[in-house]
Order: sequence, then C-alpha cells, then structure tokens
Amino acid sequence: MAQQPSQAHGPAFLFDLDGTLVDSVYQHVLAWRQALEDVGIELAVWRIHRRIGMSGGLLVNALLRETGQVVDAAVVARLQERHAAAYMELADQVRPLPGARELLETLTSNDVPWAIATSGRGDVARPVLETLGVPPSVPIVTRDEVRYAKPDPDLFLTAAARLGIDATNAVVVGDSVWDLLAAQRARAIGIGLLSGGYGRAELEVAGAYQVYEDTAELLRRIDEVGVRRAI
Amino acid sequence: MAQQPSQAHGPAFLFDLDGTLVDSVYQHVLAWRQALEDVGIELAVWRIHRRIGMSGGLLVNALLRETGQVVDAAVVARLQERHAAAYMELADQVRPLPGARELLETLTSNDVPWAIATSGRGDVARPVLETLGVPPSVPIVTRDEVRYAKPDPDLFLTAAARLGIDATNAVVVGDSVWDLLAAQRARAIGIGLLSGGYGRAELEVAGAYQVYEDTAELLRRIDEVGVRRAI
Repeated sequence: MAQQPSQAHGPAFLFDLDGTLVDSVYQHVLAWRQALEDVGIELAVWRIHRRIGMSGGLLVNALLRETGQVVDAAVVARLQERHAAAYMELADQVRPLPGARELLETLTSNDVPWAIATSGRGDVARPVLETLGVPPSVPIVTRDEVRYAKPDPDLFLTAAARLGIDATNAVVVGDSVWDLLAAQRARAIGIGLLSGGYGRAELEVAGAYQVYEDTAELLRRIDEVGVRRAI
Repeated sequence: MAQQPSQAHGPAFLFDLDGTLVDSVYQHVLAWRQALEDVGIELAVWRIHRRIGMSGGLLVNALLRETGQVVDAAVVARLQERHAAAYMELADQVRPLPGARELLETLTSNDVPWAIATSGRGDVARPVLETLGVPPSVPIVTRDEVRYAKPDPDLFLTAAARLGIDATNAVVVGDSVWDLLAAQRARAIGIGLLSGGYGRAELEVAGAYQVYEDTAELLRRIDEVGVRRAI
C-alpha cells in the first residue's frame, strides 16, 4: 500500500451518504413504503427504516422475509425501480445535514483524504452529491461498482483502495448498523451518527467507537478520532 | 375509585395512537419538516422524529430552541396549521400497525378496559381512529381535552378517570419516550413499542417495563403484562 503524507497525521475518512452527509433517510423510507404497497406488500414503516443503508437487493429480500412472501426476480427489479421513482419525487426536499459541507471542506483543506461509499445507485446518489459540493478529485463509490453493497465491506474497501490507503487506516462514518458492520468487516474504525434516526445504543452495539449527533458534532470533536487539525 | 370486575384479572390499558396503534409517525415527521420549511426553518429530520408524540406546542418550542430561533405565537400557530395540512395530504397512506386491531378486539372480548390518549388534535386523529374500528364505548382523549399534552400525565390521567380506574392500575403502551415519561408521572406501568422508530434502549432508559416490537408481539406476550386471557 502507498503511504501518503497525510497518513502520518491520522486516518482517512470513508463516508456513507444517506443519513450521514445528506438528510435523505426518511424520504427513502417512505419511497420504499410506496414501492412495496405498489406491488401489494404492506409492511410497517419502522421495519423499512431499520433496513435503509443496506444493499437494495438485500433490503428487499429482508423485508419480504419479514412478510413471509416469496417474489420472483422480476418483482424485486420492479420494487427497486418503483423505489427510485418514488424517491426522485421527494429528492428536492433533501438537504445536506448540518456540518456536512464544513466537515468535508475542513478535511480537504487539511489534506486529510476522504471518500464517499454508498449502497445507493449512482443515478439516485448524483443529485444529492451536487448539493454537497464534492470536489471532482474525491472518490465516490456507488452500488453499481461493487458486487455486494453494505453490510459487505466491498464499498469501503474499494473507496480505501481509490485513496491508495489500507482500510485499517480508515475511519468509516455512517448512520446505520449496516455501515458499522461493513466497517468491522473492512477492519476499519466505525463512527456512528444519530442523524439517520437510529438510537445511540443500536450504533454502539454494532461496534461504533464513538457516536455523535451529526457531522457538525463530529467536526467540533474531530481531534477525538485522531485528526490533528492545523487550525 | 370504582372497582370494576375486570381489575381482579389485571390492568387496564391506555394506548398512545401514532406509532403505537397506527403507522403514522414517519408521515408526521415529514409533515413537520414541510411546515418548518414553509416558515423558513431548516431542521434535520431525525430531530423532528425524536419529538413526535409530545404536545405540538412543546414540540415547536423544542425544535425552535434547537435552531436558536425565536418566533412569536402567530408563527407557532401557523406551524401547527401547516403541519396539520401537510399531514392530511399523507394521511391516506396511514394504516393500522400489525396486531393493533386484533389486540384491541382481544381486550374488548376479554372485558379488559382500554382507552386511547393522544397528543394529537381530535380532527387530525379522527380519520385514523376509523381505520382501527374502535367501539363507541371506548374513551378517546385528545389534545383538545386537556391543558397539557405529553409528557405531562394529563392525557393518561383523564383516560384512566374515564374508565373509572386509578392510573396506578393501568398499563400505558406507547412508542416514544414522551409516553413513557408521562406514564411515570401518572404512576402507571409503561410498555414501549419499537413501531414508532425509537431504539429499544431509548425506551428502556425512559422507564419501559418491557419493550416489544409492535402490538402483534404485545398480543402474543400479553400474559407478561398481567392479563389472564380467557382464551
């Protein structure tokens, strides 16, 4: 692995997107609810919430198992299309989370490497990435680029590789237990954020080294996770 | 206090509505987000989620404090109107939660007294009450009927009085920490449900004697909370 100068100062950051950098979880939840109802499946909304952030295919399988229903691949594909369409209708409500832009700018200006790794598809993620003002040099790894999305470690391992670092030198920042499980499987340090609507204990049990409210609090306490700010 | 025959067999039940009997929390969350944005206030959605179930006036004050903004009474009233309007647009998506109708029917047919006590306004609650098939004899206490909604104990105390019981003989069933705080202040036993999207530990810390996934699980384990079913 290449040793970058910045690694002398501390870790690189691998960010989840939905619920971590942008406030989109609740819109995804209601979009999945709509998609499921469109194909005749009723499921309580909180169960959908707790699956957001995992691979879309895995999410559909997990939700269907809870309803005891068996559906064929065509229905799974239709569900994913309906979700994407329903989410796009709500996407203009989606905003960056407090502190997200400031945190990313601070990392960039302090030469701390960072990347984004999301279980979402590239076409769904792109509009919200624009609201964050991500520089073109930053690696963005989406679901389309790996075989398995979260909670498999592939997204974070690929993002680390694009930064030229080993995942063991990375801090994974995410709002869901799927991020934290994927972080453990990638042998990275996991940081949980409450901004996706999980409870603190859920994230701690899933292996979070620290849990912060949101990126704004993480930025204020960035020294706690090993970044020596030049500021 | 009048002693009803059923009290010999166990407690009466005082139910919260949103997130407990009907799957409406996420729609309320996005309706508040819309209302806040309509008056120029941006707030992360998870912070709204964690305030659902408390009195609407208290919720607005709490949310505004988090944003550091000061608004006058007219804006607070406008926020509540906008929330009600935005929620009504989503209300046709709202369904009873799994097991809710069956649990209520089982209590009724076993002569276990029960009531509903909600921080919501009567006009907002009425459409979802219809989906539950609540018998006309069941007391429904809404925000309009008490001075202070949750986490004050007034709603549960009023519901207990309408059943002719003391709240200390009641089990309060709710999905939020505000239900559980109000239950403690009413000296009732609190039962938490995950169906409103809180984490288990949040409800336990707030004083839940037991936490179940939803009313379906509560019905399967109803003997754990002191009901001796004739079935």
